[in-house]
Amino acid sequence: MKSINSKPSETKNVDLVIQGGTAVTMVPGQAPVPNARILIKKDRIVQIGPSTEIPLPHGSALDIIDAQNGIIMPGLVNAHAHTAMALFRGFADDLPLRTWLFDKIFPAEADFLSPETVYWGALMGCIEMITSGTTCVADGYFFQDATIRAVDKCGIRAVVAQGVIDFPAPGIPDPKKNIRTARDFLEKWQHFSERITPGLFCHSPVTCSEKTLLRSQQLSKDYDKPLQIHLSETSAEVAEIIKRTGKRPTHYLDQLDLVDNQLIAAHGVYLDKSEIRCLHKKGAGIIHVPESNMKLSSGIAPLADILAMGVRTGLGTDGCASNNNLDLFGEMDTAAKLSKVSTGRPDATSATQVLEMATIGGAAALGLEKETGTLEKGKKADIIVVDTRAPHLCPLYNPVSVLVYAACGADVKDVVVDGTTLMKERKLCFLDPNEIMARVGEISEKIRR
Amino acid sequence: MKSINSKPSETKNVDLVIQGGTAVTMVPGQAPVPNARILIKKDRIVQIGPSTEIPLPHGSALDIIDAQNGIIMPGLVNAHAHTAMALFRGFADDLPLRTWLFDKIFPAEADFLSPETVYWGALMGCIEMITSGTTCVADGYFFQDATIRAVDKCGIRAVVAQGVIDFPAPGIPDPKKNIRTARDFLEKWQHFSERITPGLFCHSPVTCSEKTLLRSQQLSKDYDKPLQIHLSETSAEVAEIIKRTGKRPTHYLDQLDLVDNQLIAAHGVYLDKSEIRCLHKKGAGIIHVPESNMKLSSGIAPLADILAMGVRTGLGTDGCASNNNLDLFGEMDTAAKLSKVSTGRPDATSATQVLEMATIGGAAALGLEKETGTLEKGKKADIIVVDTRAPHLCPLYNPVSVLVYAACGADVKDVVVDGTTLMKERKLCFLDPNEIMARVGEISEKIRR
Repeated sequence: MKSINSKPSETKNVDLVIQGGTAVTMVPGQAPVPNARILIKKDRIVQIGPSTEIPLPHGSALDIIDAQNGIIMPGLVNAHAHTAMALFRGFADDLPLRTWLFDKIFPAEADFLSPETVYWGALMGCIEMITSGTTCVADGYFFQDATIRAVDKCGIRAVVAQGVIDFPAPGIPDPKKNIRTARDFLEKWQHFSERITPGLFCHSPVTCSEKTLLRSQQLSKDYDKPLQIHLSETSAEVAEIIKRTGKRPTHYLDQLDLVDNQLIAAHGVYLDKSEIRCLHKKGAGIIHVPESNMKLSSGIAPLADILAMGVRTGLGTDGCASNNNLDLFGEMDTAAKLSKVSTGRPDATSATQVLEMATIGGAAALGLEKETGTLEKGKKADIIVVDTRAPHLCPLYNPVSVLVYAACGADVKDVVVDGTTLMKERKLCFLDPNEIMARVGEISEKIRR
Repeated sequence: MKSINSKPSETKNVDLVIQGGTAVTMVPGQAPVPNARILIKKDRIVQIGPSTEIPLPHGSALDIIDAQNGIIMPGLVNAHAHTAMALFRGFADDLPLRTWLFDKIFPAEADFLSPETVYWGALMGCIEMITSGTTCVADGYFFQDATIRAVDKCGIRAVVAQGVIDFPAPGIPDPKKNIRTARDFLEKWQHFSERITPGLFCHSPVTCSEKTLLRSQQLSKDYDKPLQIHLSETSAEVAEIIKRTGKRPTHYLDQLDLVDNQLIAAHGVYLDKSEIRCLHKKGAGIIHVPESNMKLSSGIAPLADILAMGVRTGLGTDGCASNNNLDLFGEMDTAAKLSKVSTGRPDATSATQVLEMATIGGAAALGLEKETGTLEKGKKADIIVVDTRAPHLCPLYNPVSVLVYAACGADVKDVVVDGTTLMKERKLCFLDPNEIMARVGEISEKIRR
């Protein structure tokens, strides 16, 4: 198979055409475009509009994706994941939180994570995401050189963030070296690829000291790279921070000057209005992670309030150990419904709002809104086609409703990232899923024992 | 195509074999059976066990379903649906409840329902269910002769219940004729097919008078057929019943002698413990409908309490206008997670419990537990095979976890109902989905205008 990074020749004006379906561009205020055509040159969209207004270019070796009877839309952005945790999908469920974490997940991570296992786990999670329509992921974990190798190989767009925590962690047995490891990571990968942004992932304000948080923040500024953090995921965490600092977690981080437009705060279950206002004012991103918050019974984030305040809000799946899949279509459905039932208002959060979160909202929260998240001339060609010729997607009164409330990842037919077709007619173009599943299967046999 | 009801010849000892996968039988206490083999004669399972213990019968024209690398399990039971409402999937979302119901759904039903449209809508919903692994549905709606025609044609098992309401309804412009219509329906279909049980569907204690409820109950007893009802779906309904009768809805129905083992109560969002106890004591069934209750922001049913009390509990999708799909795999995932987050206990409701609800629990609530809901010798062969060779289902530590927390309807590979293979390798065997989608598309064009 040819390499994912081999780019088309310079001689053609157009390399790839996607045509025939209804384009849901996610450009604010733009109505769906029936029978659309999108022209792609190298990694970018060069034209988009009705087929009647954009002629099919002449050319012998033109790649064409036929989207007839489908929806063409921006690829989804999974704005909070621990991709390699695909290794632990279904390893431990339905347990009290502390048992799950301290008796199952942490020991399994300590015993079985290595650059090799993280590579295969991340590759597995990446192909799950690609085959379910995700074209960009914000990942936070350990052994992240391995995750970058997996992301590079599979062709997905990613923010890959090195974990920072004040405990012995996979690959960092001595927590005193957590910042040095993070700095080395940023230094090593900062110019590696336009498609891959290295970043930092401070585990949480509870598990990172004030000093660690401040040093991470400095690194983030020095390298101009995003800083992810788990914020207010559980009520216990909030109580702990208030006890330690006298402030709610967001205000504590703000006091340390961590709340800015490079901060990507995941979960945000227990944010009060003053915290949401603070995150909004400073331009930070919030990532809503409803299914994981439900499965671990962490709580229900105030999504309607967050969106009403205008915060840059993305959607994430979290890791497979607490979800247990990476399907953002299901996550969108859950996000909308959970907001409705928790507020008592069926109009609390609309299908359009959650589709925005899963596309341009997530892109903005990651600082990538100029590159991805909508279908627009000049943007990177991160595009998926959803096949709507299926009983569960019929009739089609409203494409957005069908995408959010009826579709699932398996309805995604074609996936293009950075102008490269990664999946066509549901077949991966560069990777053999059976090989990856076999390797993950072998690793899981060891974990099971 | 041959008709669904043409049965195999009498001369063979075995007509169909399913083999090679891990059987999750749902027989209480039974562990998954690796490399299983199931022998089916006509409509029933005649042998089930490890392949090593059950030889493959000799025979020339033996049908074989290869379940290698898959999970063999009982077909799912959708215990509360309004199947023909597939016509209104995505027609109206994200609206306040009264606007949705009175300005959108009721007028659309009044204007567009007919035996013809209900037939195509029901057929559409049925093929959606078959292709996502549901082999039995409890349907309540109007123009139910048409639904029975659709159910008969597509091969699914069903309880098809005629709607009873004290308002003008589709097909019953004069509500005085609601009981007569129901009686005619039971009379007409009572001996029609072992696979199809006619029943009654009293809309709710609010929309049916005491007299209507009593007469329906009498009919249910006379014909020995189940009686479905919407019970405590909204807080407004509960308040209204208390105002009218001085009692909570379940106790009001109990006073009328409606609470018995033929009662199938859907939703049950606002049941208190005394009501759950009453339903349990009298052997009534409760159908949990989480996604619809979330989307309409009706509330969160006390599932953990219901299961703890030992009530016969099934799982349902409700109609497509409030879900908007009929995928019970997604519904299982939501049921477990919603129970966890609403109780604050990640161990509140397990994957095994919701899988029971979606199989033997639903079958029991519908009074069909002797026929379907588990894989056992002597039971009807209502069986599905889930293909687990997919990135989102790997690794496979625990089949039940994968089915509930990671799989979706599209992972179902083969579907057998009543011994007849309805879907093989994801292709419907008797019906052309394109024809059905085209007809529903035409109807939806009229509704849209």
